[in-house]
Amino acid sequence: MTKDELKNLLESVANGEVSPDDAVLKIKLQPFDDIGFAKIDTHRGVRQGASEVIYGAGKTKEQILKITKHILEGGESSVLITRMSADAAQYLAGSLPLRYDEVSRIGVAGDYNIVHERGNIVVATGGTSDIPVAEEAAQTAEFYGNKVTRLYDVGVSGIHRLAHNAETLAKARVVIAVAGMEGALASVIGGMVDCPVIAVPTSVGYGANFEGLSALLSMLNSCASGVTVVNIDNGFGAGYTAGMINKM
Amino acid sequence: MTKDELKNLLESVANGEVSPDDAVLKIKLQPFDDIGFAKIDTHRGVRQGASEVIYGAGKTKEQILKITKHILEGGESSVLITRMSADAAQYLAGSLPLRYDEVSRIGVAGDYNIVHERGNIVVATGGTSDIPVAEEAAQTAEFYGNKVTRLYDVGVSGIHRLAHNAETLAKARVVIAVAGMEGALASVIGGMVDCPVIAVPTSVGYGANFEGLSALLSMLNSCASGVTVVNIDNGFGAGYTAGMINKM
Amino acid sequence: MTKDELKNLLESVANGEVSPDDAVLKIKLQPFDDIGFAKIDTHRGVRQGASEVIYGAGKTKEQILKITKHILEGGESSVLITRMSADAAQYLAGSLPLRYDEVSRIGVAGDYNIVHERGNIVVATGGTSDIPVAEEAAQTAEFYGNKVTRLYDVGVSGIHRLAHNAETLAKARVVIAVAGMEGALASVIGGMVDCPVIAVPTSVGYGANFEGLSALLSMLNSCASGVTVVNIDNGFGAGYTAGMINKM
Amino acid sequence: MTKDELKNLLESVANGEVSPDDAVLKIKLQPFDDIGFAKIDTHRGVRQGASEVIYGAGKTKEQILKITKHILEGGESSVLITRMSADAAQYLAGSLPLRYDEVSRIGVAGDYNIVHERGNIVVATGGTSDIPVAEEAAQTAEFYGNKVTRLYDVGVSGIHRLAHNAETLAKARVVIAVAGMEGALASVIGGMVDCPVIAVPTSVGYGANFEGLSALLSMLNSCASGVTVVNIDNGFGAGYTAGMINKM
Amino acid sequence: MTKDELKNLLESVANGEVSPDDAVLKIKLQPFDDIGFAKIDTHRGVRQGASEVIYGAGKTKEQILKITKHILEGGESSVLITRMSADAAQYLAGSLPLRYDEVSRIGVAGDYNIVHERGNIVVATGGTSDIPVAEEAAQTAEFYGNKVTRLYDVGVSGIHRLAHNAETLAKARVVIAVAGMEGALASVIGGMVDCPVIAVPTSVGYGANFEGLSALLSMLNSCASGVTVVNIDNGFGAGYTAGMINKM
Amino acid sequence: MTKDELKNLLESVANGEVSPDDAVLKIKLQPFDDIGFAKIDTHRGVRQGASEVIYGAGKTKEQILKITKHILEGGESSVLITRMSADAAQYLAGSLPLRYDEVSRIGVAGDYNIVHERGNIVVATGGTSDIPVAEEAAQTAEFYGNKVTRLYDVGVSGIHRLAHNAETLAKARVVIAVAGMEGALASVIGGMVDCPVIAVPTSVGYGANFEGLSALLSMLNSCASGVTVVNIDNGFGAGYTAGMINKM
Amino acid sequence: MTKDELKNLLESVANGEVSPDDAVLKIKLQPFDDIGFAKIDTHRGVRQGASEVIYGAGKTKEQILKITKHILEGGESSVLITRMSADAAQYLAGSLPLRYDEVSRIGVAGDYNIVHERGNIVVATGGTSDIPVAEEAAQTAEFYGNKVTRLYDVGVSGIHRLAHNAETLAKARVVIAVAGMEGALASVIGGMVDCPVIAVPTSVGYGANFEGLSALLSMLNSCASGVTVVNIDNGFGAGYTAGMINKM
Amino acid sequence: MTKDELKNLLESVANGEVSPDDAVLKIKLQPFDDIGFAKIDTHRGVRQGASEVIYGAGKTKEQILKITKHILEGGESSVLITRMSADAAQYLAGSLPLRYDEVSRIGVAGDYNIVHERGNIVVATGGTSDIPVAEEAAQTAEFYGNKVTRLYDVGVSGIHRLAHNAETLAKARVVIAVAGMEGALASVIGGMVDCPVIAVPTSVGYGANFEGLSALLSMLNSCASGVTVVNIDNGFGAGYTAGMINKM
Repeated sequence: MTKDELKNLLESVANGEVSPDDAVLKIKLQPFDDIGFAKIDTHRGVRQGASEVIYGAGKTKEQILKITKHILEGGESSVLITRMSADAAQYLAGSLPLRYDEVSRIGVAGDYNIVHERGNIVVATGGTSDIPVAEEAAQTAEFYGNKVTRLYDVGVSGIHRLAHNAETLAKARVVIAVAGMEGALASVIGGMVDCPVIAVPTSVGYGANFEGLSALLSMLNSCASGVTVVNIDNGFGAGYTAGMINKM
Repeated sequence: MTKDELKNLLESVANGEVSPDDAVLKIKLQPFDDIGFAKIDTHRGVRQGASEVIYGAGKTKEQILKITKHILEGGESSVLITRMSADAAQYLAGSLPLRYDEVSRIGVAGDYNIVHERGNIVVATGGTSDIPVAEEAAQTAEFYGNKVTRLYDVGVSGIHRLAHNAETLAKARVVIAVAGMEGALASVIGGMVDCPVIAVPTSVGYGANFEGLSALLSMLNSCASGVTVVNIDNGFGAGYTAGMINKM
Repeated sequence: MTKDELKNLLESVANGEVSPDDAVLKIKLQPFDDIGFAKIDTHRGVRQGASEVIYGAGKTKEQILKITKHILEGGESSVLITRMSADAAQYLAGSLPLRYDEVSRIGVAGDYNIVHERGNIVVATGGTSDIPVAEEAAQTAEFYGNKVTRLYDVGVSGIHRLAHNAETLAKARVVIAVAGMEGALASVIGGMVDCPVIAVPTSVGYGANFEGLSALLSMLNSCASGVTVVNIDNGFGAGYTAGMINKM
Repeated sequence: MTKDELKNLLESVANGEVSPDDAVLKIKLQPFDDIGFAKIDTHRGVRQGASEVIYGAGKTKEQILKITKHILEGGESSVLITRMSADAAQYLAGSLPLRYDEVSRIGVAGDYNIVHERGNIVVATGGTSDIPVAEEAAQTAEFYGNKVTRLYDVGVSGIHRLAHNAETLAKARVVIAVAGMEGALASVIGGMVDCPVIAVPTSVGYGANFEGLSALLSMLNSCASGVTVVNIDNGFGAGYTAGMINKM
Repeated sequence: MTKDELKNLLESVANGEVSPDDAVLKIKLQPFDDIGFAKIDTHRGVRQGASEVIYGAGKTKEQILKITKHILEGGESSVLITRMSADAAQYLAGSLPLRYDEVSRIGVAGDYNIVHERGNIVVATGGTSDIPVAEEAAQTAEFYGNKVTRLYDVGVSGIHRLAHNAETLAKARVVIAVAGMEGALASVIGGMVDCPVIAVPTSVGYGANFEGLSALLSMLNSCASGVTVVNIDNGFGAGYTAGMINKM
Repeated sequence: MTKDELKNLLESVANGEVSPDDAVLKIKLQPFDDIGFAKIDTHRGVRQGASEVIYGAGKTKEQILKITKHILEGGESSVLITRMSADAAQYLAGSLPLRYDEVSRIGVAGDYNIVHERGNIVVATGGTSDIPVAEEAAQTAEFYGNKVTRLYDVGVSGIHRLAHNAETLAKARVVIAVAGMEGALASVIGGMVDCPVIAVPTSVGYGANFEGLSALLSMLNSCASGVTVVNIDNGFGAGYTAGMINKM
Repeated sequence: MTKDELKNLLESVANGEVSPDDAVLKIKLQPFDDIGFAKIDTHRGVRQGASEVIYGAGKTKEQILKITKHILEGGESSVLITRMSADAAQYLAGSLPLRYDEVSRIGVAGDYNIVHERGNIVVATGGTSDIPVAEEAAQTAEFYGNKVTRLYDVGVSGIHRLAHNAETLAKARVVIAVAGMEGALASVIGGMVDCPVIAVPTSVGYGANFEGLSALLSMLNSCASGVTVVNIDNGFGAGYTAGMINKM
Repeated sequence: MTKDELKNLLESVANGEVSPDDAVLKIKLQPFDDIGFAKIDTHRGVRQGASEVIYGAGKTKEQILKITKHILEGGESSVLITRMSADAAQYLAGSLPLRYDEVSRIGVAGDYNIVHERGNIVVATGGTSDIPVAEEAAQTAEFYGNKVTRLYDVGVSGIHRLAHNAETLAKARVVIAVAGMEGALASVIGGMVDCPVIAVPTSVGYGANFEGLSALLSMLNSCASGVTVVNIDNGFGAGYTAGMINKM
């Protein structure tokens, strides 16, 4: 509720159109539905310009189904579900229209009738093993209406692969750089483009990568300007923020 | 050199206007000046839309002066110098026009004739001790032509201070959230706004903050969407990226 | 044995009622039963005002059964067993009356005839995935006679959910704040209430949460006063201590 | 502002006693004073039952003085300042009545007219080197009106020293256990008493204590029930929370 | 493309043999094949003197097969595949000639017609459990044409075993020291030989070896000169680099 | 070979009893048998006063059997095998006399005809879950001829259980203190006895125990004198060293 | 007080020689002196066979002097003070007879009239920089009456230096191995001798030694049997324990 | 002493030319000089093909002088001293011919008459602040007779700077890549060249570089083949090993 809405409400109270009790109710009115194990944010579309997302990890398939149904019944046409197991996807698909992608483990419940009108977000990966995280980013960005160009396996140890795609990078409005191991991709791309770069460290690698720590630290210490970082393997966060920036 | 420029050059070779030897030279021509201990990027204004910045830490004052002079003589009207000691500032001020701010340790050499035309970036801090990092962010953003609103000491343990400034936040195009200790500011702001939030963990605190690790991890694990993170105490990186997004 | 009891005993020796040998025995008398692989504390109800608890993890089901039986035969009416597998629960239920909850993995052997007379402990979680830990806390507190109000999925990225429940929080005598990821819930609640807040970091999350480290550090560095912290996922410890404080 | 206050205000609007504009102002009225680099919480005494505290570390002496003056002028009779350097103390003492303790680095500005009416908090330390942190805890608790018993240098490697003071511990309502190195004090005391134990790890030690990490982890993993933990060296937090519990 | 090749090309443009458009094409011509999920480096044999290697971990067996086929069809006679599961090996063997070793998990697709002409690389291990990593190193070096001498289970706690093999070590051109636990083998060998020692920490051990960290740190801190280190369990990297040095 | 033996040998050369070639052979003669994947130390009984031990983890059952047979055939009457899986034990038992204990996972191949002549080593644990590690220590010590007294589940949170056994501790020549979680047992026992205490941290616990790190750091920082530490869960190392000290 | 002493006392009560009140007093009689900031253990000589030691770090020079005086006045002929600054030494020397060694920072107050009767403890170091820690160990052992042989700068990267001293090592009853960097000295010595080896990691080194962590982990993971470890730089602990073992 | 030398010696004993006593002496003859706090390796030139080096850190200036003198008097013409303070350099220069470089803190005592005959080692840095470490590497390599090409400030965020120097890199026999922050330089260079790359992480940076950890992990996880790593800031180790490889 903005200040103006508040003032309007109070004027309605002042001129008797709204009773004080009703006003209290409205001011306090909860912008979420409480279903016990979850408080579903029904006003988020209004407040944040993007509808509710369900983080599937750590929830039972029954919980995911209940939340999804609740949102769709509340009027949203589609819901994005991330980190959903194939098993949960199969369970939901019994009750709901669901598009599920096994690589990114993303599901979209409800209508999937999305226009990719705003371009251009480039999603680049260091290697083939980073693709699941990259797809989480790409499909999230697409869900929110962005055009996405994929540039996979362009890691810095073969810099010519990246150089060859310099034009694609140059045309990007936002770049998402997804890399494990030494995570240097973000810095090299950051020095090649003049748009924001969102770096996604992945847990790809072994030994002293310490489950993604090496790429994370590398990206946080990037000597290129314009690089910001999200959590290890957080493709969703990168795709969502890239879309938010692309919309500006 | 873009593909078009390359093609033009090659056509000049084909029609005899440029000799092959000269073409080799041009293609290889260095887009930086080599002064031995540094390779100064003279084309960065063109390539990245923002002139060269000098990271002052770890450089001697003599090195900073030489690089600064070199850039100014190369035609830039002003140069941003970050993490500069008061001692180095005094040394440079003997040879150059310099604006130096002790809190942020930022210096601007050359003309300081900046129009803050694009708004509105909000820089918020959890506490008073985070202000030096916040000022590095704010003054960097201002150097690149952005209007900045400062919102200091609005940490989450007194959530009413933040709530009171909800309107200011709502009008921001980008928010920079600067906080040490538990670093929760980024998540709370991230849930209040629908614009990108750049989180800057600071080393403020003691004990189990482990020099900023607590705020860093907290921000990376933010449950709010739209939050990305830069290095601990990296006000410059946040201010620079916020300006880049604001320009879109 | 208190000083007074000791003096009484010695006076009995002095007046010949008790022989020196018997006195040595009594002074040394063990306040626990030794069943080899465990020393069961039979006087704990007296000494600490709360009966013995069995930490089920790392014990075989045979060991858990033997210890439980021993305690019940020693006169306790019920025993709390934490971190018990469903398999162990099934095994015990063959020999004993047992109430087992799959979410919290808590079992109560013996009578479950508990009056929740002292209120009011609020158990709040950041998300749905934190509920198993929260239930361990809540059911532990209930076992020791406390009334518990559950406030689940009120994480800080949607601060209105928390604000909406401000009154519930205001009436709490103790709050248990259970959160993974960035763990900011404890700080925000800590700033809203004037009662002790016990923070329980959970291992919920991924990547740079490092199995609960992010929430743990965040909570330890809380800028709110009145917040103390227990081990990652230690719902029992929080519920037990909250009950202890509530009793004062 | 509680729901009742809000309803009263709205009724005043409804009956014309308050204009809508004034009501907007009141609802939004800030419960803090904004002095630029700090937002001072003037309603905290009301909201949290304890007046504002100034964390001195990371603030300039000029900032500390300004904040202190502002609070005293706002009507508080005294202000607690923690982590204050001797230099800052000398600076403040030029303008204000100040009681400063060099060991704990605590200053109390304004009247120091405190009745220690509620007892009994026991502050115990493992060694002599832990005393500065313990004094921060003890003097904080005293500032808030609690009686404190000090039990210093009773570390677990000479368990008889602790056993000798069993009665003192038995009479405590809350125990604050302050220890560095292996931090075992909290567990041993936790097993001896039936009241809450607040454990304060200190950075005392060297080598593999890793600046307090050893004691911190030890205390978090305490096998005794009723033990909660605060940040390394956070005497203030322990003293404040102990007082809050003691008041119940 | 070297400077000479570039000049030749430009001279062809200048004398009309090559059109500017074709020249643009050639200059930009990609030295890799793009098969979507991977960019295969087809010029690596030329550029780095060693053909492409496939890192099998994190790739599906279908992906491994496609990449392998693509390389063999591109004219390479054989391809080295590391970290390949037995399952993937069986899958490839259905379509391709494949030599697979279960201990090192290395596969060689295509002809295995290798002459071990350059000697002598010594691969030494601290214990029996380090052999899988050592074999990855040894077989990689053999694949690239080096003679390898294996010296297994010569850890430093029985220094006579190492001393007994002093002559073998003395004749080495490069030594690969593979060890877990305390990783001291690298230092001791480093002090015995006058050739480069490549240290491979392994994850062998338990407890405070922290998955190879102990050996890694030990090797990085070696007080012997001439010792360099690769990632934990990175037998391939050590074998490849040793071969590269041996070729000089 | 000692200096005296060397001199004798050389005198035999000087007087012609031994040829120079044979002397070279003898001086270089290997004190171990090389079976390829392992170098078995056949002189260890002579050199270290204790026969060879096989660390079973990371070895295949075939390797364990071969090494065991080789040692027994070399004249040892029995061999200690640690960290052996039940599966490997069953495999060995098909070819060899073997005593296997499932709790400690220790096997003794060959004769088990051991006199426990030297006493008294006390093995104490903090809890029931520490028993497997404690048994590894106890049975190792027994294998080398020591009498062992077990004192299980005497953790510091119930200090009376430890106090009750003060006499047993007082009579020990060496104490092995086995504990996970906060690992305080070592310090408390260290302060009660005047003999060496070998502390064994265990990985028992969860959350911030970080797989045994908490107990490890706690024990390394023990404020009691006379305490030394072995690796996490290293019962064998403690039992072996305790026996070595007990023999003095 | 042992069981026998307790029985004797009780018999004296039974036969009237001691009154119950006096007996209470005696049983409870404190075996330490309380001087406020410290509880000095006056019975330690009896209980642990070695007189009180003062750990100087973290204590003011005034505190050290008071404690030292108190012990000497209590009847001890000399007191060992470790980690004492030169400044504190000068301060004590004004009031007391004091022997101070700048390298080890050890002071001995009172008579220094020590017979080194029991031999032989060998103290070995990896390098010259480890000598201060080694001297703390050596002088502590000497203070408690042990003969010490120093073997400095025999690190494993020049294994012949260690081999050359094999006889010295062979004659040791206990070896203290002091090393920083990779800390391999302990393992190599552990494989050469059949007596206990106490490993002391030092903080000597830089970079990835992480203040002694590399040597600490290395020593904890020693593949040699008979090696136990103390805290980083803890020369005192090693010297004390070695003396305790040597006395057996 | 090689096997042949040993056989020759024994034949001399057999034919009476050498007495058994003298032979014992020779066999045992120490290949180092013992000056108490150091064992100076006088045969290293023979054994390792490179004369003794003094690591200056952690040694007093008196110790450095004594060791230097001892080596020069032993016949070496010059000695390399690393990590030497300016103060120590001044002290040595009073007694010895010394060349001292303040940037690298390297001193060369004795003749500096070095022919740089073998080429070509390239030393590259990411930034200006890495130069001190790079100079330690470069001057070490030069001391051992290698030609060195310096390529400073060619970090990956401006990849054109590196591309511009591709030819210099292509001609290198060994490359030393020195970089702090994200340490990506090693991977990018590793992909450009077909010679060994020795990566030196530096502690340059701040915040989440954790004193060089970010660059270290990044380099260990390099996806480029042929990259090995030395300790943080270990310019000497890289220069020494590069020279060793260059010599092959």
